[in-house]
Amino acid sequence: MKKADDRRAVVLLSGGIDSATTLAIAKAEGYGLFALSFDYHQRHRRELESASMVASALGVFEHLVMTFDLREIGGSALTAGIEVPKQNKELKSNRETIPVTYVPARNTIFLSFALSWAEVLGAGDIFIGANAVDYSGYPDCRPEYLTAFEAMANLATKVSVEGRLRFAIRAPLLSMTKGEIIRKGADLGFDYSLTWSCYDPRPDGKPCGSCDSCLFRAKGFAEAGIKDPLA
Amino acid sequence: MKKADDRRAVVLLSGGIDSATTLAIAKAEGYGLFALSFDYHQRHRRELESASMVASALGVFEHLVMTFDLREIGGSALTAGIEVPKQNKELKSNRETIPVTYVPARNTIFLSFALSWAEVLGAGDIFIGANAVDYSGYPDCRPEYLTAFEAMANLATKVSVEGRLRFAIRAPLLSMTKGEIIRKGADLGFDYSLTWSCYDPRPDGKPCGSCDSCLFRAKGFAEAGIKDPLA
Repeated sequence: MKKADDRRAVVLLSGGIDSATTLAIAKAEGYGLFALSFDYHQRHRRELESASMVASALGVFEHLVMTFDLREIGGSALTAGIEVPKQNKELKSNRETIPVTYVPARNTIFLSFALSWAEVLGAGDIFIGANAVDYSGYPDCRPEYLTAFEAMANLATKVSVEGRLRFAIRAPLLSMTKGEIIRKGADLGFDYSLTWSCYDPRPDGKPCGSCDSCLFRAKGFAEAGIKDPLA
Repeated sequence: MKKADDRRAVVLLSGGIDSATTLAIAKAEGYGLFALSFDYHQRHRRELESASMVASALGVFEHLVMTFDLREIGGSALTAGIEVPKQNKELKSNRETIPVTYVPARNTIFLSFALSWAEVLGAGDIFIGANAVDYSGYPDCRPEYLTAFEAMANLATKVSVEGRLRFAIRAPLLSMTKGEIIRKGADLGFDYSLTWSCYDPRPDGKPCGSCDSCLFRAKGFAEAGIKDPLA
């Protein structure tokens, strides 16, 4: 492990476009980077290989993968025996219902581990690639949720209660469209060929091209006017 | 799995006195019980055997043990290579410092998994044996922390955002002394021989008798005027 900068950040890293761009932004801001990924037995564990490549490419000090099995809790198309929906119709950005790919309290679980690690590392900033525009169906991606988590975090921990560190939940992509996110990452020189988006890879390992995540990816590259290196 | 009552509760269960008493209280209130324990590679994993016995004795519908390795995060005498302190002197209830047995953000991690499971089960009440009197050193046992977690939880989840369920974090032991807790459990007919308290068992598997947790247990039974069935 290399020596970290004094200003440290824990960055949640799934291996998808949003978290990778978030990591690139935190790097550009000069943080010593500690990337945190989760093997929760998600259907699309292929994304963890991408997380590892992204972490390495962006020069993190440490990449920690926590492992647990959310299939035991279930309740989501990503962890239980629920089919990932495929569509050919146009994507709706302002959804009326929360998609079945929602994983109950996932970001709360992820941010809780990030908080624990951040306390040990002395890292005041926790970055998450939450986005309330182009994937607004998830309740735990909204600004009011993130604000509430931050308030809770500062009451939860020894370092905050003792006044030695104040935690900030940073979500720099919150108000960006997928196109703006990809444009931002491209401007920072990030290589999106390292990322993975598909929720339901084909048996040959290629993206399915028709799950929500594939469709948002395609829409984002189209909006950014950039060719998807994975396409 | 038996059929649960309509009114369901997820109860955090470590296998110690406080969580076992909390489970007994939730049972007395008529909830369908879902007990949640964690194998986080704690030094005192012996407590998980107790959790299993307690869950069985109190007739839970399901006992789920989530497994992950908090040694990878460290920062605590219970998970890292830090010695569990032993003392012969009198215990202080109003600590000036947070003990080294504090595990960074542990209750936040535990409550997050509880929230996830509660959402899947449709359980509005999440019970935790947090206590702010006789083990007040931990920041994530204080009422202001629990209130903040509850507020966050109701912004985090699909069922709460859709208005179908409101989560309550229930901490019935919050203001009780250890003696009052044991008296309460005894009044409910709970058998404390099933519980485990010691943080640092001896090589022969017996409680050490001198860690904080052993000392609080002894103090509690003395206050309650009951003989500890494990002593």
